[in-house]
Amino acid sequence: MPTINDIASRLGVSKSTVSKALNHADDISETLRKKVVETAVEIGYEKNRVRKNEAQKLCILIENMDYKNPTGFGHDLVLGFEQMAIPAGWEVDKVAITTEYQRQTSYDTFMLGNHYSGCFILGFSLKEPWMEDLKTSRTPAVLYDNYIPQNPLVAYVGVDSREGYHMAVARLKSLGHTRIGYLGGGMESFISKERYLAYLHAMEKYGLKTDAGLTGYSYHISECVRQYLPVLLQNHATAILCEHDQLANAVMIHCTELGRRVPEDISIIGFDDAAFSAYTTPPLTTIRQDQNALGRCGYYALTSLLNQTHIGSLLLRAEFVERSSIAKAKSE
Amino acid sequence: MPTINDIASRLGVSKSTVSKALNHADDISETLRKKVVETAVEIGYEKNRVRKNEAQKLCILIENMDYKNPTGFGHDLVLGFEQMAIPAGWEVDKVAITTEYQRQTSYDTFMLGNHYSGCFILGFSLKEPWMEDLKTSRTPAVLYDNYIPQNPLVAYVGVDSREGYHMAVARLKSLGHTRIGYLGGGMESFISKERYLAYLHAMEKYGLKTDAGLTGYSYHISECVRQYLPVLLQNHATAILCEHDQLANAVMIHCTELGRRVPEDISIIGFDDAAFSAYTTPPLTTIRQDQNALGRCGYYALTSLLNQTHIGSLLLRAEFVERSSIAKAKSE
Repeated sequence: MPTINDIASRLGVSKSTVSKALNHADDISETLRKKVVETAVEIGYEKNRVRKNEAQKLCILIENMDYKNPTGFGHDLVLGFEQMAIPAGWEVDKVAITTEYQRQTSYDTFMLGNHYSGCFILGFSLKEPWMEDLKTSRTPAVLYDNYIPQNPLVAYVGVDSREGYHMAVARLKSLGHTRIGYLGGGMESFISKERYLAYLHAMEKYGLKTDAGLTGYSYHISECVRQYLPVLLQNHATAILCEHDQLANAVMIHCTELGRRVPEDISIIGFDDAAFSAYTTPPLTTIRQDQNALGRCGYYALTSLLNQTHIGSLLLRAEFVERSSIAKAKSE
Repeated sequence: MPTINDIASRLGVSKSTVSKALNHADDISETLRKKVVETAVEIGYEKNRVRKNEAQKLCILIENMDYKNPTGFGHDLVLGFEQMAIPAGWEVDKVAITTEYQRQTSYDTFMLGNHYSGCFILGFSLKEPWMEDLKTSRTPAVLYDNYIPQNPLVAYVGVDSREGYHMAVARLKSLGHTRIGYLGGGMESFISKERYLAYLHAMEKYGLKTDAGLTGYSYHISECVRQYLPVLLQNHATAILCEHDQLANAVMIHCTELGRRVPEDISIIGFDDAAFSAYTTPPLTTIRQDQNALGRCGYYALTSLLNQTHIGSLLLRAEFVERSSIAKAKSE
């Protein structure tokens, strides 16, 4: 296993310089420090995970997700993670990482340079540069709603979308719906793809047909409701599954504007059970994700990876929450 | 929530009789005790999980699996589970449950009657009577390589078969194989179905065709090798994935008897990395399951369920172990 000596001889500097650079000493320039850390990553140097006189550190990397506001989507994910990690003696940093920063610094360099033993990653799209780094990275990472194949040091936690949509489609079918449509986010997100596949899977399982006129997806909610919703309605959809509650709420508002009553003319189901979902008009039927439990599982998966137990995926049960946005299918 | 009083009034006996029956007192007949426990289960009575002066108990239910012998398939599963549970203060019973017993006593009755807070279930086929009970049971259970839909008190742990076969098919394709066959166990096992689907999925992913002449499955290894193996060979299979290592070993022996050399004429890949798999002729290429890690994860999933964290599935990474049973495809 490569040592500090190997870094020193590679760069032609002393061992103590390397050590100082790795430990953020004041008398080392930022340029030299960066060179040392990059060389360390390049040759596969790994610090001892537990060092003297210093707290062990984990970080939560967050992109595109509000976690500060108690009603924010990421709030309880972060809370659940911290509720497990902090009592166990970890220091936890929450770090927002821009795409630009990811381009300049590799994931392993960032983690090693900041003494992080592992991280919990929230809200990354498939296009983030570090998603590529994670395929071969050596620092344990747990991704919420994101999957990296084959790297045993990366795990995925989330809610079982397939089971959620199975329950939703089963319930709609029992209410007489057969023309069930789907509206979702863009395909640059792992979970958007996953939900779309879950919809197709559920429709097939319950013997219901689907076609291009019954589905639409776009990263932009406005495009989903303006461009695709009218097409679904034209194609006689009597119910629509939406990838998330925000989209479902926009769809309900737009249906009303288009002169369709929810749920009398059209049934709508969301996904997430967000803080606002019990208070929409009408209250939204949805599939619950327990964000706090997901945060706790994120921590467990990370400690498993740190202890050489290579969890690949950990899925929580989905829970079907029926409110007033669904009803019997209207007979033609 | 139903109490001891409800059981007593339902049966027309005193509260203390019910309490004695639930606590295995000597002066209560077995017939009365059984009636009390069955009534308790029927009305949804749940004991306090933690009782005074008594160890908390978990059990491992085992069918069709050797765990006493260190090379037995279940040995490290049990060991990993106990290595977590016993230091945490649990008493762990290992119980072999016959199909006959399952028919006479419901799962919840057994668990409540024996004061078990939860269980880890190994080796059950889909036909075991309790697989039906588990769909609605109220006592937490973690199943190894078995899945129960929608009951939030039941979780599944296993190794990711799809990822395993993706790696296997990718490697075989890189060696020039296109006619890749599959031999598996019968369809009365969840994991047998799962592996078969994983094979189809991997073939599709790598753009390889499959057909009925390339696949065979039977609960009996002898039938697999005598009936199906010759068909696969006739249909120009140059490589065969086998559902587990025991089958793969039998296939290798039979190939030799049929005058085909492994790996020169045909490549064979197993699944499990059993204790004997490094010592077959030739040493078997396979996909490793870390049984000890699976046992540890079984315990974690069970404590999560006991703490209202509803894990549905937890999959460990598969690891591709290349030995000498695969080689370049023979050019025709």
